This record gives sequence, C-alpha cells and structure tokens, in this order.
Amino acid sequence: VLWRNGEAVVGEIEWIGVDWGTTNLRAWGMDADGSVVATAESDNGMGRLKPGEFPAALAQVCGDMAQDDSAVDVVICGMAGARQGWLEAPYLDTPADLGRLALGAVRPPDASGPLRVRILPGVCQRGGSEDVMRGEETQLLGLQTLQPNFSGTVIMPGTHSKWATLENGRLVRFSTSMTGELFAVLGTQSVLRHSLGDGGTDDELETGMQAGLMAGLGAPERLGALLFRTRAAALLSGKSAKWCRGYLSGTLVGAEVSGMGGWVAGQPSVPLIGSPRLGEIYAQALRHLGIAAETIDATQATLAGLGAARQQEPA
Amino acid sequence: VLWRNGEAVVGEIEWIGVDWGTTNLRAWGMDADGSVVATAESDNGMGRLKPGEFPAALAQVCGDMAQDDSAVDVVICGMAGARQGWLEAPYLDTPADLGRLALGAVRPPDASGPLRVRILPGVCQRGGSEDVMRGEETQLLGLQTLQPNFSGTVIMPGTHSKWATLENGRLVRFSTSMTGELFAVLGTQSVLRHSLGDGGTDDELETGMQAGLMAGLGAPERLGALLFRTRAAALLSGKSAKWCRGYLSGTLVGAEVSGMGGWVAGQPSVPLIGSPRLGEIYAQALRHLGIAAETIDATQATLAGLGAARQQEPA
Repeated sequence: VLWRNGEAVVGEIEWIGVDWGTTNLRAWGMDADGSVVATAESDNGMGRLKPGEFPAALAQVCGDMAQDDSAVDVVICGMAGARQGWLEAPYLDTPADLGRLALGAVRPPDASGPLRVRILPGVCQRGGSEDVMRGEETQLLGLQTLQPNFSGTVIMPGTHSKWATLENGRLVRFSTSMTGELFAVLGTQSVLRHSLGDGGTDDELETGMQAGLMAGLGAPERLGALLFRTRAAALLSGKSAKWCRGYLSGTLVGAEVSGMGGWVAGQPSVPLIGSPRLGEIYAQALRHLGIAAETIDATQATLAGLGAARQQEPA
Repeated sequence: VLWRNGEAVVGEIEWIGVDWGTTNLRAWGMDADGSVVATAESDNGMGRLKPGEFPAALAQVCGDMAQDDSAVDVVICGMAGARQGWLEAPYLDTPADLGRLALGAVRPPDASGPLRVRILPGVCQRGGSEDVMRGEETQLLGLQTLQPNFSGTVIMPGTHSKWATLENGRLVRFSTSMTGELFAVLGTQSVLRHSLGDGGTDDELETGMQAGLMAGLGAPERLGALLFRTRAAALLSGKSAKWCRGYLSGTLVGAEVSGMGGWVAGQPSVPLIGSPRLGEIYAQALRHLGIAAETIDATQATLAGLGAARQQEPA
C-alpha cells in the first residue's frame, strides 16, 4: 500500500507522469490500469530552475507518490529536456516516428532515490520551415494511442499554437504560431492595452470575438492592420474593453486558422488538443471554413502519450 | 531682432511649428522664407503630461523663440490634440480635404503670453475599416505642398505604419499597421527576446533582414508562424542575435508590404515618408513587388504641412 499525505492511496501507483513546462510542473500518479490516483503540481517550471535544482524540485512534487522506497518509473515530457533544462534530450527530426519517441529519452544521473526518471525528447523540423516543439509530441503520441487510425492535421491551441500533420504514426510536419503570446504581449505591453480591461458585458466579449474572427479569417495577410482596429474601435465607436478583448482574440485566432487552413482542407474532422474554452474558438473559426472539429482534453492526451512512451522502453 | 540662448537668431522667427507626439515634443522656429532658424525639443510628450501642464511645457521649449513679447503663431500637430491631450481637436472624417485641414484646428484658451496656438485635427475613418491618425495628416498635407500634382498611395513607416491614398488633395482612405510596435514588444517582451541582442555582425543583420523580407513577402497570411521561426533559427541553426533581429524586422515589414501591396499596384513610384533607414527597408520590400519608391524626410514633410496649414487660416 502506498501512502500520500497520510492517507492510503486508492490504487497502487505503478508509475508517475510529469509535464514539465516553462512556468510550472504537473505530476500524476498512475495505477496499472492507466487511471490517475494522485496529482501534484508546483510553479517550479524550467524557467525558474538552475540545472542542479531539478532533482529536488521533482522530489518535492513526487516524493509522496513513492514513499515506500520501491523504485517507480517517472516519465517526463516538456522543457525539462531543453538545453537550459535538467538534461538535454536532443530533438528528433521530422519525419518522426512517434512509436519510437522514448528511444530518444535521456536518463538524468542525479535523479533522487527511488525515482527512475526518463525525459522524452522534443521534435524539430529543419530546412526552410525551421520549428521546434517540446511537450506537444507527447500529446500527439497520446492522440495516436487514443485514435490509432488517425492520419491528418491536429491543432494544439495555446501560447505557441502548433499545427501538426500525422501520417501513419509519424509526425511529418508542423508549424508554430505565436497566437497566444501575441495576445498576451499586445494586450499588456502595446498601445492596445489602453482599450482592454474589464469594462463591458459578456455579450460584448462574444460580439467582439465574432467580429474579430470574421476580420482575421477574411484578411489574414493584413494582421498588423487588423490588430490596430482594436484601438480605433475603442476610440471611434466607444467599444467596451470586453468587446476589444474579444476582437483581439478573435482576430488572432481567425488569422491563424485562415492562414494555415490549407493544412486541413478537406479533412472530415480536426482534433483540437487544448482547453475547452480555447478549443471552442478554434472550432468556430474552422466551422467558417466548413470544417468540423473535435476537442480533446490536453491532460488526457498528455497522459495517454506518457503512458505509451513508457511502454516503448526496450526490453 | 530675436534672441535665442543669448545669441542673435539668424533670420527673424515668423512662426513656430510643433510636432507634439506621445513621447516627445519638437519645435522649429521658421522665418518668412520657410527656413528653420531655431530648433528645440523636450521629452514632455503627451503621454507624460496632465491637461493643465501643456502651456508650461510648450513655453519651456518655445519661450526663447518669442522673447520680445510680440505675438507669434504656433501651429501644432500630433497628440496634443487627442482627447487625453491639451485640448481635443476632433477628427476630420475621410474623405478629408487636406486643403481645409486647419479649419478643424482648435485654439486652447490657456496658451501662455505671446504664443498664438492652434492645434491641428487628426483624421479618422469610420465604417468597416475604422482607423485614426494624428500627425501623419500634416505630413500628407506637406507632401501635397511639395508635390502638388501627386495622387496615389503614400507609406509612412514607423511604430504605427500608415498607408494613405490621396486623390486630388483629398485623403480618401488609410490603414494603420502595428509593424514597429510589434517589433518592439516581441523583441523585448516575448520568447523571441532570448534570440535577440547584440551578438553577431552587421552582415548577419543584413542577411537576416533579407531572409525575413522574403518570408514575409511570400506568406503574409502566416505572420504568426513566421515570427516563431526567429526562435527556431536561433535554436536549430545557431543564428546570431543580429541575424534574428534582422529577420524579425524583415518579416514584419515584408508581411506588411505584401498584405497591403494591392494599394500600390501599378503606381509608378511610392513616396515613403520616414527615416532613411526604415525607408530603405520598405523600398527594398517594394522593389520585390516591382515597385519603385522615393524617400521623403519626415521632418521636411511635417514642416511643409505645418506651414501650409498656417496659410489656411481664414482671413
């Protein structure tokens, strides 16, 4: 029997999955059936840790999950494997066989006690369209595990939205759009911040979002001009802060989906891996292109991917 | 004879032109021939002043230019006429007759002593493509004064780049792109800041700029994706900070010029009002579209416009 916080854990923890990003660290204790029996997190993301501080940061979060001292597998995806992370797990190149993802994992020699740690690699794309991912490749492996017959393009909305094309279990191409980060820096650091805030109603947020989606879908090649209209709409038409927030968000998503739309043309349905709220905005944008979408919970995809990667361990 | 800083001013100051922006204030003492005989500036831009502080801020800069207490005309363009400025000079609407720009000017009642102040209005565009300008309309009037027969589209590169179409002395449409501000906030506040800096050579800056121009010109509808390649190029190909800086700048300008290119298609030559350095990048981008450009000094355009506006005063 394993114990956590002084209470008996319901199922026995067979292994631990970890998503170690730039700003935080999330861990799940998994039983043999693939169910989550414990969760823990901290804000010790890669960005605030020096290399030697990773073992303690992991033990702080996972220590309770392995307290009877028997060894336990820990499978980590994300920025812990970056050059400035715990230990670099060099990128795999596209086309990347997701079924062999874990063969590129690294084992940090300084992991503490009973934690048998592997850090999964990211994937890079060289040549004319250079690009990198760390973490999303594990969600793609998860999708492949949940939907073994899927081939096509997947969208992973977020700070750095990824569009990724899978063909027979291989990641053949991907593209990162800075959509979420553009929203964040423009909304807080640019002249547009004067037009954003909390004033206004949720209806105005929605109306602004729809206006932005149509603008971005219609003229993605003029994104720099569409963005300024947020300010002009506030000055000239007295649009509320919530309207402007919705417009800015919709414009960025609309432009991304329109500009990348060729990647999903004719696809029966596009998997969207991400938060339900963000997924719904992308689904609306895709509907305007006549394309259906299905939202897949990001945590579910991550856990399915970490579990599949664990099974890839050579005998 | 007028005195300035204890020295006799070469020509007699007939009037004073002022460009009052968000971050600074520049003033020129002009003689009857339209020559600059005195200059002064301060960092008392609109952004750091409260309404009641404008008269003193102006007197501080221009006081020496009018020290014999005879009244002198002061013509001001820019953000001093914004709602949050000295005194609001309401926008003229497009299509706007530049020959009647000064008829929309306001006279602040609290101007000090001998300064007879007028603040010129900005121009706004209502309807589907809402937009605003304050200051650029005066440069356009200046262009119209320097080249009375010009009709066509003008580009004014900068923090908020303006494209403006003139027809027979009227400003009929314009569009603002946030190109310069995108460069600033992405380069200092986003993940791209890790790839920018001072490392590298001027050759790399130029090579990056050319790569960025081609990328932006070729796929303006994927700007959000092209921007992230700055980061990927640093991580995967070890591109230097200067290369990345050039690439980011070139990508933003290339995307702007490509997306807006329809406005200048078939035009024999496009006036670029701005700094020589920035103008050269835009000229390069336009050359890729097979379009010639001529750079016009921004200060020269502003002074020509302020001078023409002064003459518009009703008798």
